[in-house]
Amino acid sequence: MEQVKLYDTTLRDGMQGEGMSLSAAEKARVVTALDGLGVQMIEAGFPSSNPKEEELFASLADLELERAVVCAFGMTRRRGVEAAEDPALLTVTGSFAPVVTLVGKTWGLHLEKVTKVSREENLAMIAESVAFCRERGKRVVYDAEHFFDSYREDPGYALSCLEAAIDAGAENVTLCDTNGASLPNQVGAATEVVATRFGDRAEIGIHAHDDAGCGVANSLAAVDAGARMVQGTVNGYGERCGNANLTSVLPALQLKMGFDVVPEGKLETLTETVHFIDELCNLTPDPNAPYVGRNAFAHKGGMHVAGIEVDARTFEHVEPAAIGNERAILPSELSGKATIRDQARAAGLEIDDETASRAIEVLKEREHHGFHYEAAPASFELLLRHEAGVYKPLFTLESYRVVTQRRAGGEVETEATVKVLVDGERYVEIAEGNGPVSALDQALRKAIAGRHPHLNEIELTNYKVRILDQDRGTGAVTRVLLDSADGDGREWGTTGVSGNVIEASWQALVDSLEYAFQ
Amino acid sequence: MEQVKLYDTTLRDGMQGEGMSLSAAEKARVVTALDGLGVQMIEAGFPSSNPKEEELFASLADLELERAVVCAFGMTRRRGVEAAEDPALLTVTGSFAPVVTLVGKTWGLHLEKVTKVSREENLAMIAESVAFCRERGKRVVYDAEHFFDSYREDPGYALSCLEAAIDAGAENVTLCDTNGASLPNQVGAATEVVATRFGDRAEIGIHAHDDAGCGVANSLAAVDAGARMVQGTVNGYGERCGNANLTSVLPALQLKMGFDVVPEGKLETLTETVHFIDELCNLTPDPNAPYVGRNAFAHKGGMHVAGIEVDARTFEHVEPAAIGNERAILPSELSGKATIRDQARAAGLEIDDETASRAIEVLKEREHHGFHYEAAPASFELLLRHEAGVYKPLFTLESYRVVTQRRAGGEVETEATVKVLVDGERYVEIAEGNGPVSALDQALRKAIAGRHPHLNEIELTNYKVRILDQDRGTGAVTRVLLDSADGDGREWGTTGVSGNVIEASWQALVDSLEYAFQ
Repeated sequence: MEQVKLYDTTLRDGMQGEGMSLSAAEKARVVTALDGLGVQMIEAGFPSSNPKEEELFASLADLELERAVVCAFGMTRRRGVEAAEDPALLTVTGSFAPVVTLVGKTWGLHLEKVTKVSREENLAMIAESVAFCRERGKRVVYDAEHFFDSYREDPGYALSCLEAAIDAGAENVTLCDTNGASLPNQVGAATEVVATRFGDRAEIGIHAHDDAGCGVANSLAAVDAGARMVQGTVNGYGERCGNANLTSVLPALQLKMGFDVVPEGKLETLTETVHFIDELCNLTPDPNAPYVGRNAFAHKGGMHVAGIEVDARTFEHVEPAAIGNERAILPSELSGKATIRDQARAAGLEIDDETASRAIEVLKEREHHGFHYEAAPASFELLLRHEAGVYKPLFTLESYRVVTQRRAGGEVETEATVKVLVDGERYVEIAEGNGPVSALDQALRKAIAGRHPHLNEIELTNYKVRILDQDRGTGAVTRVLLDSADGDGREWGTTGVSGNVIEASWQALVDSLEYAFQ
Repeated sequence: MEQVKLYDTTLRDGMQGEGMSLSAAEKARVVTALDGLGVQMIEAGFPSSNPKEEELFASLADLELERAVVCAFGMTRRRGVEAAEDPALLTVTGSFAPVVTLVGKTWGLHLEKVTKVSREENLAMIAESVAFCRERGKRVVYDAEHFFDSYREDPGYALSCLEAAIDAGAENVTLCDTNGASLPNQVGAATEVVATRFGDRAEIGIHAHDDAGCGVANSLAAVDAGARMVQGTVNGYGERCGNANLTSVLPALQLKMGFDVVPEGKLETLTETVHFIDELCNLTPDPNAPYVGRNAFAHKGGMHVAGIEVDARTFEHVEPAAIGNERAILPSELSGKATIRDQARAAGLEIDDETASRAIEVLKEREHHGFHYEAAPASFELLLRHEAGVYKPLFTLESYRVVTQRRAGGEVETEATVKVLVDGERYVEIAEGNGPVSALDQALRKAIAGRHPHLNEIELTNYKVRILDQDRGTGAVTRVLLDSADGDGREWGTTGVSGNVIEASWQALVDSLEYAFQ
């Protein structure tokens, strides 16, 4: 099998995304995680654009990596300066990183309108900068900025920039779709010309962006046309619409196109690895992400589930386990008994056919009243536990009361009172909150935490409200979805439905705590 | 210019996405919005799989659309039943919709393992079902389910399914990548064969999914190969990883590939339209979405900004205005004054440049705090009126108080008290409601309706709540969107933002009544 390399630029281009920031220590953890996945090349940034980068390169120099090489990023020399005297080139070649990636201008429009450098001088800047890095013992990747825009206007000049880099010793020339303007057929056609012309002298790389929603497809089109290295970022992080998403590129190359990308056994760690990196970046994993999203292999009952039981190929494009993901069967009134039993099993419950039938009836009844368990699997599990007779009540509610008032001075205050029985004992507690749900939550936890202190570790992470029967305005039925998390990184979703938003919220809140207690 | 049609299945396939649900009235608003964008074909669902769908088709029959035709969705007849006696086919052909889209099996694996129908009988099912719809006067689209999987295994049979549909009178055969398994070159190659074989007898469509992150690219590859209709959903909604994202497909076809898709002046409404539909679905628009995301044309200072000032092509793949989006350059002030003045004019207000500048400042400040006026134009108009000095206050609030309690017996009760000054006179009123917002609404109207009886005609028609800044925990802010309508069929949207959901609701409620009073 032919090899294709992954070149990850999460730590440089990925960090250009809105709100992205990682400490040097966190970046080092990303490098270790990517190495563990089998990524071949990791661009860490510019060795000393600031003290944080300096610290990063210092720590990376000591890291023992299985497979990945670290790449330092820089630019071709400045106009009118000798390469050997360009401070940035001295810095980038002075780092421990064995590979230097140099970005350089490739598009006439940029030379004329932005940098005001002649086409000839630009070729000299490319050639001399690459040659200098080679003299200093570095392997060199040349990133041809705006390559495809340039190629559409003046293919001759675009190719001469690559040639200058290759002649000077670059082992790889990477074709960059810097503005994300290109579509796959354009990328494929241009890459084919490059591969035919230079394929025997240098490796061809592709660096795509997702501005047209084609970042992954552009990368694959380039590989089809002869590229053997793909630059991109984990989960498609990056400025504007992001870079080519390596999380999607990798399984396509390996499972669908038959290339050898990561070593055996590594692809199966993909989901875990990219979710870990999401977590480091403080991002919620996209539930609909290709291959690794929690919905990527989610099926609604009926024919899909029946089909998958016979042959998974009927409704799945790849085996979820191949990328470390899992099949999910969504609860819905369309579900059959087998589906319900599977779901129960996934929750550690063995239920018989009769219980499954009863659960389906309850589910239908609830869905008719506006419940919707797809986004609230924890509430659904509680429903199953009820029907299976293994539900443990956390407390018994006597009453609650919530008061929100805006005083004459303008301050808004909320307080909640709850009266509950826990293990036969009566607790009456009051608490304030910045809204009725948080006040109820506080009061309820005060009441039961004496008996169940671990419930204090639960955090409410998301809260959504929808009106179901829109024609009735605020008189309609309200559905609340609540997400919770505990200190161990577990997350669960619960729901409540009522004509009253407070009561619906209460139900979702109680389910959240009860779920944690089961 | 050659035409390519958009076929939107947001209301059927899009609704398969996690947590998606729209009322019949909201679906009708989606249809109107898509028609306004210039979409040619809109699949509304199966005419009577349930009462909600029945209500939808009844309301769509009365809708006056500029351009779009409504399509009803159904399946080929059941095995062993005459098409003319198949209840589902009778229903689907009985609706007002001029187009029937029939999905049918195309893949041997499914016939063998899932439906247990012979290949011959499947061809008869396709032919007879299409013919029956034609007899009943319908235009027919045949959705060839799993076409590409089938084509990879047995191209002859895949093509014979299409042929059966075309021979029976289908005007369009749509190649479905049902499992999202295919990559663009596979889609392109197979579509080319189909177009060569059948292109003179039927239109070719493409229906792609995003399981490999190639939904958009697969759609474009099919068009390159001869398809002239693209099925997909707004913003790529749909089960698993979603359907082909028409929001990205449309500008690529029209701006990059030179096809005639939507009428002149329509593409410029794309951003607004798809964000409106996001809001209806209670989804936050993806900030990194291609073309329409708020980051899609966001530039970080320095060279990018300098380049753009000289020639926008240096760093932008298309003009943001072409799809109704805006360039964002940080951290400088956007001009926007002309836009604000246009918006004021639309509301019957003439404002000067200075007022426009002030309004922009207030808007920025509010947006920074979580306000979002796209789905709340009435609140925005009130903001403009404030700045223009033509705002008429309806009343002055002294204080309010809402109490929700669940009694020991289980009944849930809510009451609200408001103390307000109307035309200098103080009113103290109390009212009950089935939730805090309706109680506040009732109490407030009791207090002011003596002076302003016409406010009693206002109905609150929709109410949505979302938490912003989910990651911040205690720093979370709640945004409420409220829709109102009066007896004359006018509708307006207002918003409120606060750490407290009750206070946010109150703001939206007050804006709603104040707007009606202006």
